[in-house]
Amino acid sequence: MFEMRERAGLGRTGRLTTHHGVVETPALMPVVNPSNLVIHPKDLAGRFKVDIIMTNAYIIHRSELRDRALKEGIHRLLEFEGPIMTDSGAFQQHVYGRVDISNEEIVKFQAALGSDLGSVLDIFSEPDDSRESCQAAVDGTLARCREGAALKGKMGLVGVVQGGLFPDLRQKCAEGLSQIPLAAQAIGGVVPLLESYRFADLVEVIVASRKGLRPDRPIHLFGAGHPITFGLAVLLGCDLFDSASYAKYAQDGRMITPWGTTRVRNLKHVACSCPACFDATPRNLREDLGRLAEHNLYASLQELKEVKQAIHEGSLWEHVERRSRAHPRLLEGLKALRKHAEFLERYEKLSDGSLFYTGPESIWRPVAWRYRRRILERYKPPEAQTLVILDEASRPYTRHYAALLRELLDKANAHFVVKSVLGPVPIELDEIYPIAQSVVPRELDVETLEAMEIFLRDFLRLGHFSFGLVWEGDETVAKLASRSPGPSPVDLDLTRAGAVADYQFGPGASDALFAGEVELVKSRRTRRIRNVYVGGEHILSMRARDGLYTLKLAGGRRLHDAFPPPRHRVLVDEESAPFNREGKNVFAKFVEECDEEVRPWDEVLVVDGSDDLLAVGRAVMNREEMMAFQKGVAVKVREGSALV
Amino acid sequence: MFEMRERAGLGRTGRLTTHHGVVETPALMPVVNPSNLVIHPKDLAGRFKVDIIMTNAYIIHRSELRDRALKEGIHRLLEFEGPIMTDSGAFQQHVYGRVDISNEEIVKFQAALGSDLGSVLDIFSEPDDSRESCQAAVDGTLARCREGAALKGKMGLVGVVQGGLFPDLRQKCAEGLSQIPLAAQAIGGVVPLLESYRFADLVEVIVASRKGLRPDRPIHLFGAGHPITFGLAVLLGCDLFDSASYAKYAQDGRMITPWGTTRVRNLKHVACSCPACFDATPRNLREDLGRLAEHNLYASLQELKEVKQAIHEGSLWEHVERRSRAHPRLLEGLKALRKHAEFLERYEKLSDGSLFYTGPESIWRPVAWRYRRRILERYKPPEAQTLVILDEASRPYTRHYAALLRELLDKANAHFVVKSVLGPVPIELDEIYPIAQSVVPRELDVETLEAMEIFLRDFLRLGHFSFGLVWEGDETVAKLASRSPGPSPVDLDLTRAGAVADYQFGPGASDALFAGEVELVKSRRTRRIRNVYVGGEHILSMRARDGLYTLKLAGGRRLHDAFPPPRHRVLVDEESAPFNREGKNVFAKFVEECDEEVRPWDEVLVVDGSDDLLAVGRAVMNREEMMAFQKGVAVKVREGSALV
Repeated sequence: MFEMRERAGLGRTGRLTTHHGVVETPALMPVVNPSNLVIHPKDLAGRFKVDIIMTNAYIIHRSELRDRALKEGIHRLLEFEGPIMTDSGAFQQHVYGRVDISNEEIVKFQAALGSDLGSVLDIFSEPDDSRESCQAAVDGTLARCREGAALKGKMGLVGVVQGGLFPDLRQKCAEGLSQIPLAAQAIGGVVPLLESYRFADLVEVIVASRKGLRPDRPIHLFGAGHPITFGLAVLLGCDLFDSASYAKYAQDGRMITPWGTTRVRNLKHVACSCPACFDATPRNLREDLGRLAEHNLYASLQELKEVKQAIHEGSLWEHVERRSRAHPRLLEGLKALRKHAEFLERYEKLSDGSLFYTGPESIWRPVAWRYRRRILERYKPPEAQTLVILDEASRPYTRHYAALLRELLDKANAHFVVKSVLGPVPIELDEIYPIAQSVVPRELDVETLEAMEIFLRDFLRLGHFSFGLVWEGDETVAKLASRSPGPSPVDLDLTRAGAVADYQFGPGASDALFAGEVELVKSRRTRRIRNVYVGGEHILSMRARDGLYTLKLAGGRRLHDAFPPPRHRVLVDEESAPFNREGKNVFAKFVEECDEEVRPWDEVLVVDGSDDLLAVGRAVMNREEMMAFQKGVAVKVREGSALV
Repeated sequence: MFEMRERAGLGRTGRLTTHHGVVETPALMPVVNPSNLVIHPKDLAGRFKVDIIMTNAYIIHRSELRDRALKEGIHRLLEFEGPIMTDSGAFQQHVYGRVDISNEEIVKFQAALGSDLGSVLDIFSEPDDSRESCQAAVDGTLARCREGAALKGKMGLVGVVQGGLFPDLRQKCAEGLSQIPLAAQAIGGVVPLLESYRFADLVEVIVASRKGLRPDRPIHLFGAGHPITFGLAVLLGCDLFDSASYAKYAQDGRMITPWGTTRVRNLKHVACSCPACFDATPRNLREDLGRLAEHNLYASLQELKEVKQAIHEGSLWEHVERRSRAHPRLLEGLKALRKHAEFLERYEKLSDGSLFYTGPESIWRPVAWRYRRRILERYKPPEAQTLVILDEASRPYTRHYAALLRELLDKANAHFVVKSVLGPVPIELDEIYPIAQSVVPRELDVETLEAMEIFLRDFLRLGHFSFGLVWEGDETVAKLASRSPGPSPVDLDLTRAGAVADYQFGPGASDALFAGEVELVKSRRTRRIRNVYVGGEHILSMRARDGLYTLKLAGGRRLHDAFPPPRHRVLVDEESAPFNREGKNVFAKFVEECDEEVRPWDEVLVVDGSDDLLAVGRAVMNREEMMAFQKGVAVKVREGSALV
C-alpha cells in the first residue's frame, strides 16, 4: 500500500507499507551482496538510517547460502529487520545471455525467502534494440509479470517496464503492468542509458513509462544508483532507487558527488563533511575503500534528502535545473522536459514556492506553460482604448510604478501589459502565481528574449486591444495624460478580482461569482484584496502567498450553478457524502469521478451522484490520482454544506 | 609572506605565513565575539580545523575585556594559538556614524594585542554614494593605511579598497594600497551589495579592485561570509573571507546552504550530513541554535574545500557556473564576467581540465575567448581550394568521420572547419585544448547558436578560403569526390604540427621550428603526434592531455632565433642564471622581466641580461605575478643549456 504525502512536478514524497515496516519515499535501496558485505546491513539500518535494502535472489539461489536463506529467511540471513527487496537475475540473464532459472522458480524462491518486494525475471532490452525485439521483450515481460502475480503469495511483486527507446511500447508495457496486481512498478533497461549519459533518452523513457503506470504504486528506476539523476528522476515520478554503485564505485577508486564522480587519486582536498569524510585525508579515502564506500552511500542518501526537502519547500524544479549543470548531457535531459510541458502540467500544483530563473529552460516549466495557456484561453481585458506594453526592462520596477500606473489607468483609461519572461502579464494579474513569485535576472538570454516576443505576439493576436504603445518612460506618460478618458475608467481592484477568477476557474467564472453587489475587503497593511463579498455573502478569500482564491461555500454555489458537471466537480460515493457534508475531508478511495481539468491545489466542488453540492475544498490530487489511490486524502474540505 | 600553490581563473590556493603559523588559502575566518562565544575558539581549531579566526578589536577596546586583552594578548584571551585577524571598528563607525577611537589608536591597540593581521580604520562608502563622497573615502582610507603602516610595528597590516561602485576609484585606491607595505589587502564596502544580492555590481567591484591590487598579497573580501559567493569571489582572486554569518544566521533561525538559506521553521528533512546535522531532526536545529551555528560553519567551510578541490581539478569555472544557479541575481554576476574576458584571460592557464558547457555563459569563458582570438590572429590554413564547414550537429561525430575526412583531404584537397560552440575549429586544431576537452549538449541555446554564426563569420572574413560548402552528409562527399585534386594534397599530420605551433607560439613559429627535415613520431596506440624531430634534433613533444607542445631546448633555440626579445622570454638576474643553466627552476624573486604575453603554463625561454638562452621551461605565473611575488617558482625549468 502506497500513500502520497507531498508533491512537486510528477514527484512526491510517500509512504510504502510492507510486511516489514514502512518505507519513506523517495528511497534509496543499498544493494547488499550477502557473500561480500561492504557495509553490514546492521550498519545500514543503524548508522545510515536506511529504511529498505535490496539483494539479488538469483545470486543467493546459485550460492552456497541458498539453503540457509530458505531456512532462515532473507531477513535473518542479512540480519536486517526492515523491508528487503530482491532482484531476479534479469540483468545477469541479459549480460550472460541466460540464467539457469525460470521466472516461475525465481518468483517462488523470492516468496519462500520472505522477500517484501520480489522481482519478476523480466526481459531486458538494450537502448538500440530493434522494435521487433523490444516488442517481444514487452510481451514476454508482461507474460512473466502475470505469471509472477499468480505465484507471489503474500509477497509484494515488482513488475518491470521494458520497451527500449520506443515510447509507445514503453507506455503499452506500463499500461499492461497497471492491470496486474503489483506492489511496485520498475522502469527497466535504463542502465545502458545511464552508463552512456544518454539523459535525454532517459527522460523519454521515464515519461513514456509514467504515462502508462498507475500513480498509486511506487515507481522504481532500476539500476539508477548515482545521485546525479535522482532529482530529475524524482521530478518525473520515480520513488525508488537501488544502489550497488556506492560499493562498486569505491572498489574502482571513485568518489560519488552530487556533480558526478571524482577519482580518489585526483583528490587533494576532501570536500565533504559526511561522517566518513569529515576527518579523512585524501590518502585515507584512497587506502580505505570501505570508508570510500561509506562516503558514496552517505552522498547518495543525502541527495535524496535534499530532493525531499526541495519537494517540501516547492523548489524541486530549481534543484533539478541546478543539478542539470553537473554534465552537459544532463542538461540535454533538462531541455528534453520542455516538450512534455503539457503532460507535466497536469501534476503541477496550482501554486508552489517561488520560481527562480536559472536559464532559458526555466521559462518552459509547466507552471509557466500553464500561465501562458490560461492567459490565451481565459483572459479578457477590461474595456480600454490604449494598451501600454511595459518592456522587460521595466519588470523589476513594476511595484515602484504601481501608483503612477493607477493614476494613468484613471486618467487615460489605458491598459497595461508587462512583457515578462513567463509571458505577457496584464497588470491586474501581476499578483498571481507564478508571476509575483518569479525572480529573474536583469540580463536575459537571447533565447528567452526571443521567446518573450513570441509570447507577446500570441497574446496580441487575440485582438483585445485597439491601440498599442510601448512604454518609453515619461514620454509615454505624457502621451497618455493628454488623451481623453475612455468610456469608463477602470477600477483596478474590481478588474483584478474578476480577472483572477476567470484565470483560476475559467471564462464565465467572474460573471457568475460577481453577480450582485460586490464588496472587496482589503488588507489594511498591504492594500491587497483579502476577502470578496457579493450580496453580503463571503464567497472568496484571496491568499497573500499566491494571489489566488480559496472558495467559500457561497462562492462554490455560484460556480456550481454556472458550470455544468463535470467542471470543477469531485464526485464522491454514498458512503462518503454525509461525512463531506459535515466538513470532513474526501478520501481518494471514495471518489467516483473527477473533472479532468482539476489540478492539485485547485479549488473544487465536492458533489454526490445527483450533483448536489456537498462541500468546497482544495484538491490535493488530480483526476488520475483520485481514481487510482486507495489511501490518502483527495480533497481537503474547507466547508461542508451541512454546516453553513 | 604569501605564496601561490595552484590556480584557476584569477583564483589560487596559497599559503600565508604569519607570526602564529601558516594559513592555507582560500580561508574562512570565523568571527569570534569574546563576550559571546557561540563556538569556542578551541573548538574552531579542534573540531572545525580552522586555521585563522577574526575578532573585532574595537569591540574589545570598548569592553571590560580591554585591560585583560592588553595584558594577556589576544591569543591567550581567545585561547586560540593560530593566527588571529582583528577588525578596526570601521563598520561600526559607518553604521553608527562615529566611533570613539582614531585610526592611530586602533592600529596601535591591535599591535599591542599581538594581532597577526590588524585592520586600518578605513572609511566605508555605500554603493550608492556619490563620486565625491567615494573619492573622499578613498583618499581618507589611503591616508589611514599609510599612517597605519608607520605604526603597525611587527603586526601585519590589512589595508582596504574603497571607492563605492566607481571602477576607476576602486582601481586607483587599490593601486595606492599596492605601494604601501601591507600583509593583506581587503576589498571593503561590499556588505550592502551582498545583502541586496547585487552580484553583478560585486563582480565589477572585485574586478576593478583586483586590477589595482598586487597579486603577491592575499585579498580579503570583507564581510562576505555566506558560501553562496565563495566560488565566484575566489575565481576573481579573493583569498580570505570572514564569517560572522554562521552565528548571526543561526540566531535568526536560518540554515546556510551552498544554494542560499533555509529557515529552520521550514525544514522537514535535514538534508545535510555534517557532524552537526547528521543525527539531527529539524526540531533539534530549531531548538538548538548553537547546533545550527555549527552547521552553518561546517557548510561554509565545506564550500571552500569544494572550491579548493575544484581549483586542483581544473573545474573552478564549472563550479562557479553551477553555483550561479543558486539565485537569478547570482546569475547576473556570472553574466557580468563576460565583459572581463580579456582581463581574465591573462591569468588563465594554457590548458586546464575539461570544459563542460553549462549554458550560454560557458562560451565566454576566458579560455574560449583566447581560442577565438588566437584563431583569428595566428591561424593560417594550408593551401586548399575548398572549405567544408561541418555544422555543429556533426560535432560529436568528428572522430567517427576522421577516416572519411582524411580520405577527402587527399582526394579533393578540401579543408575542413567544424562549427563549434567555442568558435570555428580547423580540422588540424581539433586535438588542442579547449576544443578536444569540451563537452557540449546536442541541443544548444539560441544565444549560443547565434554566437557560433558570428564566430564563423569573423573567421571567414579573414578570406582564407576560395570556395565553401556546408557539410550535408553523403552529398557533400560525392561533390567533393568528383572534384579534381588541388595543387598539393595536404598531409594532415604535418599541417597539424605546424598549426599547433603557430597557435601556441604565434605566427612564424612553425616556419622557425620546422625549417629542415621534419620527423613526426606518433603514438602507436592513438596514432597521435608525440614527438617532433627536425634535422635529427628533438625539438618538441606534444602532450596527450591538451594537444599542445612542450619545448625542448633545441626547439627553444629555434624560437629564440626567430622571435626577438621580449617575446617568450623570462629574463632572470645574475644570481639566478647559473642555476637555471644547470636546469634548476626559476624563482619569482629573481625574475627581472617577462614577456607580457606569457600566460601560466606557457612554454618560455629563460634568458639572461644578454638574451643568452639559459633554459626552457613552463611558466607557472604571468608577467604581473613574476614581477610581484617574492616567494615561489615562476618557471619550472625543463632543460638547462648547460646540460644539453
